[in-house]
Amino acid sequence: MSFCIRCGNATALAVPDGDNLPRHICGTCGHIHYDNPRMIVGCIATWEDRILLCRRAIEPRLGYWTLPAGFMENGETTAEAARRETLEEAGAQVDIDAAFALVSIAHINQVHLFYRGRMPSPACAAGEESLEVGLFRADEIPWEALSFRSVRLCLEQFLADRQRGDFSFHERDLIPDWHGDHPPTNARNSTP
Amino acid sequence: MSFCIRCGNATALAVPDGDNLPRHICGTCGHIHYDNPRMIVGCIATWEDRILLCRRAIEPRLGYWTLPAGFMENGETTAEAARRETLEEAGAQVDIDAAFALVSIAHINQVHLFYRGRMPSPACAAGEESLEVGLFRADEIPWEALSFRSVRLCLEQFLADRQRGDFSFHERDLIPDWHGDHPPTNARNSTP
Repeated sequence: MSFCIRCGNATALAVPDGDNLPRHICGTCGHIHYDNPRMIVGCIATWEDRILLCRRAIEPRLGYWTLPAGFMENGETTAEAARRETLEEAGAQVDIDAAFALVSIAHINQVHLFYRGRMPSPACAAGEESLEVGLFRADEIPWEALSFRSVRLCLEQFLADRQRGDFSFHERDLIPDWHGDHPPTNARNSTP
Repeated sequence: MSFCIRCGNATALAVPDGDNLPRHICGTCGHIHYDNPRMIVGCIATWEDRILLCRRAIEPRLGYWTLPAGFMENGETTAEAARRETLEEAGAQVDIDAAFALVSIAHINQVHLFYRGRMPSPACAAGEESLEVGLFRADEIPWEALSFRSVRLCLEQFLADRQRGDFSFHERDLIPDWHGDHPPTNARNSTP
C-alpha cells in the first residue's frame, strides 16, 4: 500500500490521533486506510450420509480437495456467502442448518466460518474454480489430499459430532507451526 | 475508491477474468482491489450477575450504551479481538468462555461477533472511546439508550439463555427496515 485510494498521492504509515496502531495515511488529503481481516465462508453440504467436496482448479492448493468456500462479499450475510460458494464451486443447492465452525488464522489475517447444510438433491457439478466435485462417505474422504487445515479440522469435527449424534458450534485458532498431527493450541466449543 | 494503492493511477470498475463481480481495477498496473465485509468483535463480559457496558464517547451513537466491541485487527484471533476491545474500551480483563452471537448486517458490509466472558474482578474504567463504564444487573440495563441493534439482540439473547440455564450459539441477520419491536427475518441457533 503506497498510494491513497481517494486522491492518488503518497501514503505513509503513522498512528492516527485516538488510535493505537499504525495505518496508511495520505500525506495530501489525510485519508486513513484501514486493512482488516477477511472472512472466508464455506459449507459442509451433505446428501444423505455423504459430504460434498471440490477439487481445486485454482491456486493455492490446486488439485487438492476442499469444502466449497471463498471470500465473503459485500452485501451478503454469512449464510448467503455459504450458499453462494456451494453453488458457484460445486453447482449444488444447499439448505443451511447452522453455523458449525469458526477458525481464526491470525498470521494470514483470515477468519474461516463453515456452515452445516443439507442438499435437497445429489445434483452437483464442477464450477469454474473446481476440477471435479463429488459426494464422499466418511471412509472415502481423501484425507491425504485435503487443501487446507481449516477444512481438515472442520471435517474431523463434523464426523465426530455426527457420530455423537449432536452438532454444536466449534471454534479453533490455527497457528503457523501447527502440523496436521498435533491439535491447535486453543479450542473452545459452545457446549464445553 | 478512485486510485490504485500500488501505483497511484486511476482505477475503473470492471469484472476481472474468472470473477463475476465488478472490482476496482487499475488501468495502468492492472492491480485488482477487493473490498470485503469487516468483522466487529465484542464481548458480553460479566462479573457475578452483572453485565459490563460502556457509554460511547465517539460517533456513531455518541452517548449511547454498548457492549465493548470494535473492528477486528490484522494479526489477532476473534477471541483476542474480544479481549482487546474489552480492555481498551472498558479497562476490564475478561476470561473468554465461548462465541455467543453472530450477526450479519449485509447492507453495511459488517459481521458482528460477540463472545461470552467472565471478569476475574469487577475492576473497569472508561477507555478513550468511552464516557463511562458500568456493571449492570438485568433490570438496570438502559434498553432505551442502547447503541446498536446487534447489541440489543445480543443482550436479550444472553438474558434469555441465562434464565434458561443453557448458553448456545446464536445467529441473526439484520435488515435495514427492521425496527426494534419486530424480530429479524432470519434466525438460526446452533441448538434448534
